[in-house]
Amino acid sequence: MSTVTELAEKLIAAPSVTPATGLVFDVMEAMLEPLGFEVHRFVRGEEPDGPVENLFAIRRGPEGSKHFAFAGHLDVVPPGEGWTSAPFAPEHRGDLLYGRGAVDMKGSIAAMVAAMADVPEDAGTVSFIITGDEEGPAVYGTRALIDFMIERGDTPDLCLVGEPTSVNRLGDMMKIGRRGSVNIWLEVNGTQGHVAYPHLADNPLPKLVAIMAELDALVLDEGTDWFQPSNLEITDMEVGNPAHNVIPAKATARISIRFNDTHSGESLSRHIMEIAEKHGGVARPIISGEPFLTPPGEFSQIIADAVKAETGVDPEPSTTGGTSDARFLRSVCPVIEFGLCNATMHKRDEAVAVADLETLARIYARVTRAALSA
Amino acid sequence: MSTVTELAEKLIAAPSVTPATGLVFDVMEAMLEPLGFEVHRFVRGEEPDGPVENLFAIRRGPEGSKHFAFAGHLDVVPPGEGWTSAPFAPEHRGDLLYGRGAVDMKGSIAAMVAAMADVPEDAGTVSFIITGDEEGPAVYGTRALIDFMIERGDTPDLCLVGEPTSVNRLGDMMKIGRRGSVNIWLEVNGTQGHVAYPHLADNPLPKLVAIMAELDALVLDEGTDWFQPSNLEITDMEVGNPAHNVIPAKATARISIRFNDTHSGESLSRHIMEIAEKHGGVARPIISGEPFLTPPGEFSQIIADAVKAETGVDPEPSTTGGTSDARFLRSVCPVIEFGLCNATMHKRDEAVAVADLETLARIYARVTRAALSA
Repeated sequence: MSTVTELAEKLIAAPSVTPATGLVFDVMEAMLEPLGFEVHRFVRGEEPDGPVENLFAIRRGPEGSKHFAFAGHLDVVPPGEGWTSAPFAPEHRGDLLYGRGAVDMKGSIAAMVAAMADVPEDAGTVSFIITGDEEGPAVYGTRALIDFMIERGDTPDLCLVGEPTSVNRLGDMMKIGRRGSVNIWLEVNGTQGHVAYPHLADNPLPKLVAIMAELDALVLDEGTDWFQPSNLEITDMEVGNPAHNVIPAKATARISIRFNDTHSGESLSRHIMEIAEKHGGVARPIISGEPFLTPPGEFSQIIADAVKAETGVDPEPSTTGGTSDARFLRSVCPVIEFGLCNATMHKRDEAVAVADLETLARIYARVTRAALSA
Repeated sequence: MSTVTELAEKLIAAPSVTPATGLVFDVMEAMLEPLGFEVHRFVRGEEPDGPVENLFAIRRGPEGSKHFAFAGHLDVVPPGEGWTSAPFAPEHRGDLLYGRGAVDMKGSIAAMVAAMADVPEDAGTVSFIITGDEEGPAVYGTRALIDFMIERGDTPDLCLVGEPTSVNRLGDMMKIGRRGSVNIWLEVNGTQGHVAYPHLADNPLPKLVAIMAELDALVLDEGTDWFQPSNLEITDMEVGNPAHNVIPAKATARISIRFNDTHSGESLSRHIMEIAEKHGGVARPIISGEPFLTPPGEFSQIIADAVKAETGVDPEPSTTGGTSDARFLRSVCPVIEFGLCNATMHKRDEAVAVADLETLARIYARVTRAALSA
């Protein structure tokens, strides 16, 4: 049996800039089959958002046993410039293993594979839900895997997502939810004219200013026990009028809202559209994620106990930060995210402490055993 | 003696895109000297706003007589594309004389020159205040001529500016004043950041929106007997942020105010700067003109009587529209603007009705005689 570090090195050595297919999935399949997993792979989508490869692997426990799933992604963000060593040639320097995907999230996938050695086959059903498109548009990835599981009747009872949630040291944070996200483009059309003859023009800017002032004054909510208050940011306003004596014909703006589970992307969009229309404008929303929450309880306690036992740290249950594929999986079962330290994710010289890989494998083994016996 | 039309043709045939020097002033000097005028010419300024030629011509009446001045400009705006005939080759088609400057304002200068034949030399002192830069920055033009007159002790008692003020037919409008104009650039600086972590950023846009909302709600005044209410237009807002998940570092806007004589450019600028600073922004004004007014009275009545006698029309005393060099001349004496129809000014195929040129020469002769005997 390979060590967790060897497994991580093999995955890093298979380049897989999003969207990913092929080699890295071959490597993954070769790791899982010897562990008794039944491996299913399928490719979905076309350029530019695809093709995307997906892998669902399952090792069945005794009839009626619990089903615990680990979800993750083998695609990585582009390496960018300025690396000290080649990004897809895993390299040890000091206590660290360098390579694109070391923490996000080939390292944690390796840890879960390694953990399987410490989870008896008769403890229950375990599965890997692995996509090749979490870093991209995520259209053909985890959503297709969920459809696949539902069709087969293989949906899990609990799901751990291996995103790098730790901040300053391994174990200090897990994500029990994420805020939703919607970007809204606003536009007001008027009639161009000369500033000396404003009665012949219809200036769209006072209307846009009125919309933005009303949006900026909105108090969306006061936050909840587990979420900070929803937040609206004005991110852009544009007219592009070089002539200082001309009233422009069109004015645009953009807002970005990160919202908690007291809203849906749909309800918020409708609210903003009403405000825009009241002032003579239009609003065009693009919802990039709905909020999700797995309230603290048995599942978060299982993770906290495992982390505490291996690191001595009490992980903070958080709902901060961006979005992840957990937003899709929450429709199937309770989902919590827990993984490596995220300091170097998406940066040059992404690296993971070898000791963290080993500790994470032990934490994942504890979590899996406890989840299957819960 | 040449006819008014021949004089206009000669001036049009001397190309004089702003700023103008040389040939067109030679033509002008050659017209005035035979009429008994003492002609002074001087060039001021350098590239890019100059060089600008100026001409001051005076024909003195008896000791102690009144001094009536006609002010105008020989520079023209660039012809642009699409002319039916060459813009600097005066051409008659039907009742119209075509050429750049036909109405703005070589035609009215020709009318005033022609009018001199009907103004006896002993009626009083008459002068021409003619610049080569009214259409450009107007830095080295009429202001330099005013300094020249003041130094010589030759300031007029009344001044008629020959701008094309008529709208639908010759005589329907004179300008007894003009609004002032100020453009103000507004800027708010903040700190860039990610929309998911707004507490680490400082979004300048809510502050800019607050400034613009307060500016848009301002009631500057209710207008006066002779001026419409001052008007503030938001003409631009710019951030230039392509990233929908980024809070921008800087936000800018621009406003344009046309204001009446209840304000000065300075007082308005100070007011706007205070509003900007209250919300954490800065305002940078550029005053392009102060308002002026020659309240209806003896001078406007002289013009109205002359117009009525020659056309049967009662000219409306107006303060609408853009600015002109009258704003500078008002510091010297009462000023009113009256001239040809402005429908084709600054456009391709600029043209004047030959009949209007002849009528305008008669009106100017009446005005001059009446002003000198007032």
